[in-house]
Order: sequence, then structure tokens, then C-alpha cells
Amino acid sequence: MRAERIFTDARLATMDPACPGLGVVEHGMVAEAHGRILYAGAARAMEADEIVDCEGRWITPGLIDCHTHLVYAGDRAAEFEARLQGVSYEEIARAGGGILGTMKATRAASFDELRNAARKRMAALVAEGVTTIEVKSGYGLSPEAEYKCLDVAKSLGDVADISPTFLGAHGFPPEMERAAYVRLLCEEMIPHVAAHNLADAVDGFCEGIAFSPEEIQQVFAAATKHGLKVKLHADQLSDLGGAALAAKFLALSADHLEYTSEAGAAAMAKAGSVAVLLPGAFFTLREKQLPPVEVFRRHGVPMAVSTDLNPGTSPLFSLLLAMNMAATQFRMTVEECLLGATRHAAAALGRGDVGVLKPGAKCHLAIWDIERPAELVYRIGFNPLHQRIWSAA
Amino acid sequence: MRAERIFTDARLATMDPACPGLGVVEHGMVAEAHGRILYAGAARAMEADEIVDCEGRWITPGLIDCHTHLVYAGDRAAEFEARLQGVSYEEIARAGGGILGTMKATRAASFDELRNAARKRMAALVAEGVTTIEVKSGYGLSPEAEYKCLDVAKSLGDVADISPTFLGAHGFPPEMERAAYVRLLCEEMIPHVAAHNLADAVDGFCEGIAFSPEEIQQVFAAATKHGLKVKLHADQLSDLGGAALAAKFLALSADHLEYTSEAGAAAMAKAGSVAVLLPGAFFTLREKQLPPVEVFRRHGVPMAVSTDLNPGTSPLFSLLLAMNMAATQFRMTVEECLLGATRHAAAALGRGDVGVLKPGAKCHLAIWDIERPAELVYRIGFNPLHQRIWSAA
Repeated sequence: MRAERIFTDARLATMDPACPGLGVVEHGMVAEAHGRILYAGAARAMEADEIVDCEGRWITPGLIDCHTHLVYAGDRAAEFEARLQGVSYEEIARAGGGILGTMKATRAASFDELRNAARKRMAALVAEGVTTIEVKSGYGLSPEAEYKCLDVAKSLGDVADISPTFLGAHGFPPEMERAAYVRLLCEEMIPHVAAHNLADAVDGFCEGIAFSPEEIQQVFAAATKHGLKVKLHADQLSDLGGAALAAKFLALSADHLEYTSEAGAAAMAKAGSVAVLLPGAFFTLREKQLPPVEVFRRHGVPMAVSTDLNPGTSPLFSLLLAMNMAATQFRMTVEECLLGATRHAAAALGRGDVGVLKPGAKCHLAIWDIERPAELVYRIGFNPLHQRIWSAA
Repeated sequence: MRAERIFTDARLATMDPACPGLGVVEHGMVAEAHGRILYAGAARAMEADEIVDCEGRWITPGLIDCHTHLVYAGDRAAEFEARLQGVSYEEIARAGGGILGTMKATRAASFDELRNAARKRMAALVAEGVTTIEVKSGYGLSPEAEYKCLDVAKSLGDVADISPTFLGAHGFPPEMERAAYVRLLCEEMIPHVAAHNLADAVDGFCEGIAFSPEEIQQVFAAATKHGLKVKLHADQLSDLGGAALAAKFLALSADHLEYTSEAGAAAMAKAGSVAVLLPGAFFTLREKQLPPVEVFRRHGVPMAVSTDLNPGTSPLFSLLLAMNMAATQFRMTVEECLLGATRHAAAALGRGDVGVLKPGAKCHLAIWDIERPAELVYRIGFNPLHQRIWSAA
């Protein structure tokens, strides 16, 4: 076995599901050929074209941000400022702000404008060792604008693995009746997205202020019919049974989940759905209701952690910070946070070839200047990344 | 008037107290000579040796982090991890952790070790446009170790303005009786610090778990006698009347202040003390009691915002993030946050030559890739700094 490149004198957190915890290897190495991991484990002799001496640093899989709304135009800084001055959400909405403000700006923006703006945001994630990013549409809310956003998402794949998700069911466009938009989603947009391979999955926002469970059911039925996996913004502000609904459709993940019931968690466990927890939105919205982490543990629901990067409720550009917030706010352990940004995040995207250091996986690595993995969760606003390896192949 | 350097085509947030709000100048410029600001205001013709075209970017004063514990050895990542696994503070303390663990590591560390560790932390602040940093001792708790930490603090002055603060009254060293340590502080350490110009101010931690108001009173009396200004960690976990005590000694600032009473705020207003709010500790400790921001507003107490960078209760390395946390958690406005990291932070350090863009001030600038100042507070974990100008002179 000859490697193209070996990373020696490293400590590994392999995230290997066959090992307990983080799958730590204290005296480890990683070998790569053709962009894939040939070997990850205890140090041993191996021939290689190139040797990277890690000088005792830690290697984790490249991090995975499995829930982002990275593609949008405009920002909501002025709204943020107004809200702190006491202006209400309703007044902001009446003045054309909120999600509809972002929708208007996104519709008006060109492909290049959207791409350039997304690039800058993405750079912040990439600088922290993120190598795989889920990117949702959902600020277009028309066929043309939604497809444009998915095209932009795909175009970002020259810097990281991109997993595009169709979130047409994010809100209702002001120019249409609810039922007509649901029909448009099910009969035109989802078939188009599937036929043109624009997205890996279909997502929806199930909430009193968004889509009802019945409407989501229609959207998911259409997705399933067209061979697309589903995921769901569920139970963020109230318990509408979103987690159970997602599980019924064997969703890759249900996300947010502050109000999820024990029955919802049990259904997710049975369906194999990942619980994606989003502490940035919890923080920004000053929520009080904690997601039922202990219930997910008891039922064996894998938990992921993500930024939820979006202009309104979570303008959070750091997955390291998302982990810290998940630990501090949700009392997730260091191990849960780190698995939640690697192996479990991969599962939330239906991918088995990233988020883990094992033979056959993509050679996406993050090499860290740390003494123990806990430092990645403990520090707030500090980036100890030494090197990021992203293997395009 | 000829400038060495002019910064043209800029939008300014001057923080000039003579102007309302942030002292915005939409079509502005800054002129510098000998490390000082010659002119800051509306664009006009001026001769200069060097012209920096800001291309419409915003300029603020270089940011000021006015409350940090930057100098220490070790970190507390392992404790953070253990606490999330359910280990209690008491068990950690018994195992040699907590503040005494940091004290032991700090005492054992050499000057160079402490300096190198502080350098890395400082680099994170500097990367966000911070040009002035207050640095406290307080993890030595012996004459030798405290002076060593203050020397380390001063040695960092080649990259930013450093304002060293003597915080011998941070905790009690395990090898001494309380009264004996207070005497050591008052009769030996404070006189030494003053005589050798090791610090600009004396700080203390007034709390049930630390120094009593009576002990702080002795420390402050000694500081005042030796010509040193004072500041105080006050009313963080309970109302011991710390704010009023600080005001009695005309403190530069009282810091934390979650439990400060209206009488305490009124006393601070009268004394001209700045309220330094520390949202990173509030976040990390999951506190519920909010500092009385509205009371400070009503009494006209200037508010500053800082990281409180320390290994235990606030491992926060980003002043931008501190501003976001102050807005989100404490409902400080964008304007209050930005003044709190510039002009009011300068006041908390007793300095009038930084934190503002006006003739005579040091030419410390932060040039930002933003469309409006609110973006500096709104985003979480994103650094839009274009360029930092720090004028050593």
C-alpha cells in the first residue's frame, strides 16, 4: 500500500462508529490516495510521495455544517438595530422587512451577486475547518428564484462539498394563495428539482407562522414520489408534532426541536432521523424552551449541531461557536458536540463518506493547534485551525 | 496643515462626544501626523505624504477591550468538559481545578511561557481591530507572581496599547490567612506596584466567594494613598453594594453589575464611574439576572462592553461577539454597544486619547468592510475588518 500523502505524528479523533466516544488514537496517522483515506489509525511505516508532519497536533474529520441558509441577498442589520430600539416585528414586517424583505432582495439579485455574497459567508466557515456545507434555498419562493439559489449553492462546490436542499416550503410568497403555492411546490417545483438534480433533499418549515403539518405532508409526499429525501424545520416555537411527521417520511433529519415531545423523539429514533440542534437561533431569539437533549439521549437519537446561518434568526458564521453554544445552552457534552459537527452531521445529510476518518472516506481533514478536543468547544470566538485539507476528488 | 497620511473616501463613526450618537460623517476623511489624528471630519483637500483610499468603507476608532484577564497559564477546557458531564464545581476544586488550578499553573510558568500564551489570545482580539487592551494580573496571588504577570502585560505593548491593572485582590492564596493577605496587598504589593509603575489601576473581586466589602475598602484605601485609581468586580452574583463602594472611591469603573441596585447606579453616576458590562460571563455561567441597563440609562451612567477574557467564566476572545451578546442578552442598542467598545471603554481606563476620532487623539483606526455600523453588532462570529491602524507613537 503506497500513499500519495501521509499525515504523521498526529493525534486523531476518528469519529469511527466502531470505537467508543470520539475514536481517539493518541499516536496516529492518516494516509491518503486519490482524495480518499487509505488508512487512519495507529502510526505505522508506510511509503508515501509526501509526508506532512503534524507535530503532535490533533486531526479531526473536516467539520460539517448540516443546516445553513447561506444563499440570500441583503442582510437584516438595520432590522436588528431597530428591534433593539423597541420597534416590533410587526412594524418591521409592515415596512417590508423580515423574511419577505430578504425574499425581495434575493429575487432581485443576480446569480453573481448571490454567489459573491455567499462566498464571503462561506469563507468564515471554511476558515474554521468546515469541508461540507448543506445549503438551503428558501428565500426565492418562486420557481425561477428558487432554482437560481440552488444553482448558486452548487456553484460553491469548488471550495467545499455542498449539499443543496430545496426549501421552497420556507414561507408563502405574497403574490399567491396558500393552496396554490403548495400545488406549485408539489406539481411543478419538486418534480423540476428532482428531474434536474438540483437538490439532495426537500425541506420545509412546519410552524404556526409557516406551513401546517397537512401542507408539509403534501410537500413530503411529492418529494418522496420523486425520489427525494426529506428534512424538516420542526417544533421550534411550538409542538405541532413536526418530529413525528418527519419520522413518518423517514426524514434524514428534523431540525430545531425545542418543543419536540417524547413521542416525537421515539418516532425519530425508529426512523433513524438525526436531531439537528441549532443553538444560534435559540440564542438570537432569546428562547427559554430547551430542546429535549436528555430525551434524545435516552432514545438513542443521534444529535447534530449546526449554525443555521441565516440573515434573520441566526446570523451565525462559526460552527465552533455553534458547538460552544450547544454545550453552554443545551448542556450537550463535548463528545456530543464534536460528533454533532462530524459523523452525525454527515448522517443528517445522508452521507457516509464524510465526517469520519476511516478507509474509503473522503480525505477531508481539519488539523488543530490544540492539546485536547474539548478546546474546540470550550473557547468562544477563537479559531485554533492549523490546516484544512479538502479533497475535491 | 500637511498630513503624513490621509484616509479618504471613508464613512466615519467618530464617537465624538460633541456629536449625537456615533458621530457619523458620511463623506469623511481622517488625517494623521506623528501617530496622532490631525483631522477627522468631512472630506476636504489636504496635502499628505500618503493617501489611503478607503473606497467608501467605514472607519471607527480602534476598538478597546477594557476588561481582560489575558495573562495566565493553562486553560480550563478539561474542567469545561467535566462540568458538562455532571461533575460539580466542588469536585473540580477538590481535584485542584478552578481558579487555584490556574494560579498554580501561572506561578509555575516562566515569563516567556506566559507571554507566548498571552500573545496568541491577543492575536484574536487584534485581528478584529482592537488597539487598546486592559490586562489584569490576579492569577499569581503572590508578590513575585503578580509582578511577573504585570511585566508580561507591559511586554505586550508592542502590538497594542496595554493598560495593566493590578488585581491581587482576585482571590486568596491557599498558603495565607485572609487578613494576612489583605495586609500583604496593602502594605507591600500595592506600594510596590505604585512605586515601580507596574499598573494604571487597582482592581478587586468583591463577592461572597471572594473579598468582602470591608476587605476591598482596605485595598482601595491603600491604592488611593499610593496614587492609583481603582476599579471593581462588583455585584456579579449578589448585591453587596459593590457599585456604591466603587463609587465612593471614585472608581474608573465597576464591572459585571448584574445585581446592582438603583442606589448603586446613582452613586456611580455621581462619581463618573463607567459600568462595564460583561455578557460573556453572563452567557457562560448561564445567569438569569440581567444588569440594570435601563437604570444606568436613566442615571446617565456610561456603559462599556468587554470580553472579560479569562480561562474560567468567560473564555471569550472576540470583542465583536461581546457586543452581539450585550445586544442580544442585555438589550443594549447598537449605539450603546459601539460606544461601549470605544469611547466609554476608554473612560473605563481613564484615557481620553483613544476611543474617539478627533484631533489630538492617537491614530488608532479600524477600517471595516460594512455598509452600516450595526453590522459590527448584528453578525455572530464574522469579522469584517479590512485594516487595523495602530500608531505605536
